[in-house]
Parts: sequence; C-alpha cells; structure tokens
Amino acid sequence: MSSIPKIVILGAGYGGVLTSLRLQKELNYNEADVTLVNKHDYHYITTHLHMPAAGTDNPENARVNISKLIDEFKIDFVKSTVVQIRPQDRKVILEDGTLSYDYLIVGLGGEPETFGIPGMVENAFNIRSINSVRLIREHIEYQFARFKREPHRTDYLTFIVGGAGFTGIEFIGELADRIPELCKQFDVDQSLVKIINIEAAPTALPGFDPELVEYAMQVLQNKGVTFRIGTAVKECTPDGVIVGEGEEIKSQTVIWTGGVRGNRLIEEAGIETMRGRVKVDEFLRAPGHENVYILGDNSLVFNPENERPYPPTAQIAMQQGVNCAHNLVASIRNQPLKPFVFSNKGAVASLGKGEAIGVAFGKKYKGRTAAWLKKIIDLRYLFIIGGIPLVLRKGKFF
Amino acid sequence: MSSIPKIVILGAGYGGVLTSLRLQKELNYNEADVTLVNKHDYHYITTHLHMPAAGTDNPENARVNISKLIDEFKIDFVKSTVVQIRPQDRKVILEDGTLSYDYLIVGLGGEPETFGIPGMVENAFNIRSINSVRLIREHIEYQFARFKREPHRTDYLTFIVGGAGFTGIEFIGELADRIPELCKQFDVDQSLVKIINIEAAPTALPGFDPELVEYAMQVLQNKGVTFRIGTAVKECTPDGVIVGEGEEIKSQTVIWTGGVRGNRLIEEAGIETMRGRVKVDEFLRAPGHENVYILGDNSLVFNPENERPYPPTAQIAMQQGVNCAHNLVASIRNQPLKPFVFSNKGAVASLGKGEAIGVAFGKKYKGRTAAWLKKIIDLRYLFIIGGIPLVLRKGKFF
Repeated sequence: MSSIPKIVILGAGYGGVLTSLRLQKELNYNEADVTLVNKHDYHYITTHLHMPAAGTDNPENARVNISKLIDEFKIDFVKSTVVQIRPQDRKVILEDGTLSYDYLIVGLGGEPETFGIPGMVENAFNIRSINSVRLIREHIEYQFARFKREPHRTDYLTFIVGGAGFTGIEFIGELADRIPELCKQFDVDQSLVKIINIEAAPTALPGFDPELVEYAMQVLQNKGVTFRIGTAVKECTPDGVIVGEGEEIKSQTVIWTGGVRGNRLIEEAGIETMRGRVKVDEFLRAPGHENVYILGDNSLVFNPENERPYPPTAQIAMQQGVNCAHNLVASIRNQPLKPFVFSNKGAVASLGKGEAIGVAFGKKYKGRTAAWLKKIIDLRYLFIIGGIPLVLRKGKFF
Repeated sequence: MSSIPKIVILGAGYGGVLTSLRLQKELNYNEADVTLVNKHDYHYITTHLHMPAAGTDNPENARVNISKLIDEFKIDFVKSTVVQIRPQDRKVILEDGTLSYDYLIVGLGGEPETFGIPGMVENAFNIRSINSVRLIREHIEYQFARFKREPHRTDYLTFIVGGAGFTGIEFIGELADRIPELCKQFDVDQSLVKIINIEAAPTALPGFDPELVEYAMQVLQNKGVTFRIGTAVKECTPDGVIVGEGEEIKSQTVIWTGGVRGNRLIEEAGIETMRGRVKVDEFLRAPGHENVYILGDNSLVFNPENERPYPPTAQIAMQQGVNCAHNLVASIRNQPLKPFVFSNKGAVASLGKGEAIGVAFGKKYKGRTAAWLKKIIDLRYLFIIGGIPLVLRKGKFF
C-alpha cells in the first residue's frame, strides 16, 4: 500500500455517485486518492428513464454531466469501460488502461435478467441507459411512420412490455400517455394501437399493496392497456412473442423489464455470487475481500424481518453509497466500521401524467397526491446530488 | 351529358388545387358540378418536403387541410384513392365508389423513376408525400439511436442521396444542417457521419447556370457533403449501393431523388404516354380525349425554343391549373379555349439555412439574397392558395 490509499469507484450510478459525493465532502486533503470510472461522462437517473423511453420527456432531463457533480480537484474522473476486475492483483483493467487500488467500490449496475427465454436478448429492448431509451423512443416513432407506408402491418402498432414490475408499469403509464400524441402526429387511428403488458407472476407489482395494485391496473386499463397477468413469455422472436400454450402475439416492439441480474464482470473476477449478485457482509464488502465494496444492483442485502433480499432500487443504492463512504473514511482512519442498515422510506410508482400509487411513511397514496409525492422524491434526489442549481436545471415543474 | 356538366378533378396537388380554386371563383351558381378527389384530406406542398424529410421543419408546415382551401358549398370533396380511369365510360373507379364525369382533370402526380436500377424500389426512400418524409425523418433519427448501441456499425451514419436534381440538392442542404443537431442529441462524433450525393449526369443540377451550380456544390461541400458526380448507381441493396465498376458504399439509408415518371393509372387507362407522361395538346388535353385534361407531373409540355419538355415543377403545374380552369369554364360556356403558354419565372434551390441559388427575372442570385427569394416564393404560394390566414398559419418567419 502506498502512503496515500487509492480508492477506485467503478460506475457512476446511484451507489458510485453517492460514495463519491460523500468522500469528497468527508476526506481531508491528501487523505486518499479517489478515482471514479464510468463508461459515459454523465450519470443517468435510472428511475426517470421510463419517460424518455416513451418520449414523454427529453433524455437530457435524465442525465447529469459528471463534471457538474464531482469536484475534480478532489476526485479524478476516468471515462472508460471496465474490462476486468483482478482482486488478486488489486487492479482494474479498463478498455484503455489499468488502475490499481487499495479499496475498490463496485457500482457497475446490473444486466437484464431474461431467465433464458429464447430470443429475448436478441429481439427485445431494455430500459437500461440513455442510449437504450433513445433507441426505444426512436423505434416507437419509426413504427408509426412505417405503418403509414404499410397500413396492413398493424403489428407495427402493437407494443409489448414484458414484466409488470416498477419499470414495466411506469413505462406503460408514459407510453399510454404518448400514444394519442403519436396518433395525432402520424394520422393514425388510435383504435389500432395496442399496449400489452405480460407478466408471469400472479399479480402486477408483486410485493405492493393489493389495493394499490388494483387501482394502478384500473388506471392503466382506462388508458387502453391490456394486461396478461400470470402469463409467461415462452419466446421472443423478430415477429413478436409466444406466450402460454404457443399463442403468438405479433409485434415489432418488445420491451423487456422482467428482471435485473448482477454484472458478469463480478463473476468473472472470481467473487462468489448468486445470479451475479454478491451476498455482501454487514459492511457491504464482498466475502473474502475486505477491500472490495459492492453496491446497488450487484449486491444482495437481506431483510432481517423475512430473510429475503431487498429488491434493487435507487433508494437502497444511495443509502449504500453513504454507508460505504463512511466506512472507507473509517478504514483509512483506523476507526470502527458501521454496519449497513436499510431504512425503507417507501416507494411510489408513477402511472403517467398526474397518476401514481405509493407507500410512504407507512401510509398509502394514490392519484394526484401520489404523483406529487413522486415528483418530490425526484426533486429531492436532484437536490442531494447537485443542490439547488441541478433542481432548477433538470427538475421539470408542474 | 346531364343538364349540369360534371367536372371531376383527380388529385389535390398543385395542378388540382389551382384548378379547383379558379373554378370555385369563376363558375356561376349551378353552372357545373365539381368534385375534387384526393387520397388524403390534405394538400401537401411538395417543394417544402425536403425540410420535414431532413427533420429541419415540422411536417405540419408542409400540408394544408383541403377544407381550409376549398369552399365546400361550391366543390364536393371525396377522400379516396383512384383505382382506375375509364375514359370510354367517362367514369373513375375509386377504392370505395365510382364517379362519372363530363370533364376529367388528372393531376394525380408522378411516381419515382428508378430507371430499372435493381433494388431501388425495394430499398430506397423517396421524398414524395407527407407519409414518406415522416418515414425518412424517423428512419434517420433511428439510425443515430441504433449506432449508439452498435458503435461498429458506421454504415448507420452514412446517408446516400441518389440524384443531384432540385429535390436531391435541397434535401442535402437540410440534412447537412440537421446532422450537427443529431450528433449533439445522440452524442455522436460528427466526423463519423457521411452524406454522399451520387449523380449519373456529368453535373449537379443539370440545366442550371454552371456558376451557380459551382457555388451550390461549394456550399454543400463546406457543410461536409461528398459529391460523386458522373457516377451511376448500379444497384441498391439492403446494405447500401453499388456504383461505377462494382464499388460498394455501405449505408442503411438511401434516398432516391433521381427522377419522376408519370402515374401508371394513365397508361392503364389506355391513354398514349411517353414514360408514363402524356404529350398534351395546346389546351392540356390528352390526345384523342377532348374532355380529359392532364396536369403536372403526368403531362409533357414542350418548350418551343428547344423542342425539349419542360421539367415538371410546381410552377408549371400551377400555371396549368389556372389555364385548365379557364378552358373548362370556356368549354361550358361554348367560348373559345386558350392555349397554354408556360411563363418561366425562374427557379431557386435552397441549400439549407440562409443559403440558396437561383435565377429569377433573368438575374442570378446566390447566398442570403437567394434564400430570401426562396422564402418569398414559398409565402407567395401560401398566399395564392389560402390568402393571408394561411401565410400566417404555415409561413415560418425569419
């Protein structure tokens, strides 16, 4: 170890950004050498991606330049893609270089979990990044333009969303709002457009309050969404999906939101995983690697009340980032580490303009109140990472 | 013939709209029964389509509802597609009905002339209608989004325009203006984008003043356009084009502006044609059919000075419409017909924002002055068809 410890943070998602922000605040001058590595020179707000994906908001509102967030006098930023993590050598191999570390924070985000459904990787879109949602938006608009030239192809106007979790439901809410605009713009008869949500589980939004789930489905059905709950996608083809007992639903647009798994780089690094995720210790460290912290989609943290893992959310990743930064500072100063305890503030799912459902502070919310609550949560996040200037720049007002 | 003669006008392009507008002004009450037939319930301004195709203007600015143009107390409007013209029965078969006529005005517009180049019909786009230009715009944006997900596919960023006539050149000017915006929007390195114009003739804009052509090419080259003049497209494939001696240029976007031929419906009607066009008599009538007038892209009118046909332009179609309406009224009133004489007011080609070249009133113009002239011509057209209200609604101000 050099005289100044080297901290390398991989990924500028919720976990990586919060760790960086806290480190730059808490570390003293020359106490550590911190480097943040990210594929893009921007951070994106994953919980907002359903809007630009549907085209109801500009992708610019879902990203923030990293240079606006971190203080480059305190933290080095490297724009590169991670190729390999080598815990045995304490090195990270980048596409265009190598970094050595004393402490590594892995916040690389997950990958879509397709459960081995044939054709899903090849033929479906994912709501995963700025680039992927721009592609979805452009693809949807393109289908409307194509339909006008080939009016027998009504499959161009069928939009299939696989998965009725948070991302799927929030995307459907936005898409249902966008369809009337697109029909107007392209002179398309709205009755030809179909939005179909397919979910294998026996309910939409599993784990959510049943009364709120009922309300959400009603709101979305009124906007024209068809639900196929308890229906498994058997295959995704270039022409649509096969469900249930071989029924084909023709579509040129399948968006898969059915699940997230950990990043393959972690498995490849020789770190023990369950579906790519690492069952971290109480301080968020990988088992057997005291200097490697795993945050966000790649970590498994168990709820002590029911012994089940917490679902990967922005909320838990942010709290992990704060805890991780604290423990890094404590390690450097030879102070005791603090165990990570998740404090669940609740969750709100938007259902399009002016509609949402949610649970917060132990209370249920729906409709316009829940939509306000969602907006406040979004603005609070902007405030946490970038203060008032970022709220003013990116926060859409009502 | 019924007591009130029936006039049927096919197509609400420049010729059909001008004929309709003049007839509704000049005919007395109950002097004739006029029906305008058009595929869409809007007229589109073909000379403006290069802008929405490139995405530099909204397609709404290139179309006008027919109900805003014609007085439905004087002219019936039928939204339908013409399936067959039967001069022997004096009938027109529509997709959903039949119309009989005493006088027929054919202003159906032309079709792309691909000169039998293999694959061009299947694989290239055309700048021909609102639907076709919306498809081009969406297709171009989609290529940028796709490239971000498959960065090795630089062919997504190569845009080939076949033909350096008016439409090709004007489209290239707009596309070159749009590229920097698209690069910014999708985070694409602009140096990867190519616009290639391929023209088989020995010069761009054949027939135009060579000094102005030189200027136009310089302006477009400065915007990053590559010209391949004197180069024939041999084949258009799903992967690009084959030119010259077998050279392949990879591209996912080929826009063919190489020529226009007449509408197949006219040949199928048994009317004598040259490449689908009808060599009309001095009153714009089809030979052997005294009650059938052919306007616009489907008519061949020869320049008496050089015995060559005038190129099909909006300008000539509009003048034909005015002449045709005059002759219809004269026919009904048993007055002598007036021969059609084309009065060439000149031509201006835009080269993107603030740049154009043109000849008008016997003088050459280029740069900003020519761009103003172009704008004035566009506004004058809106004024002719829809008066001041239309100018205010559709005319973009500077």
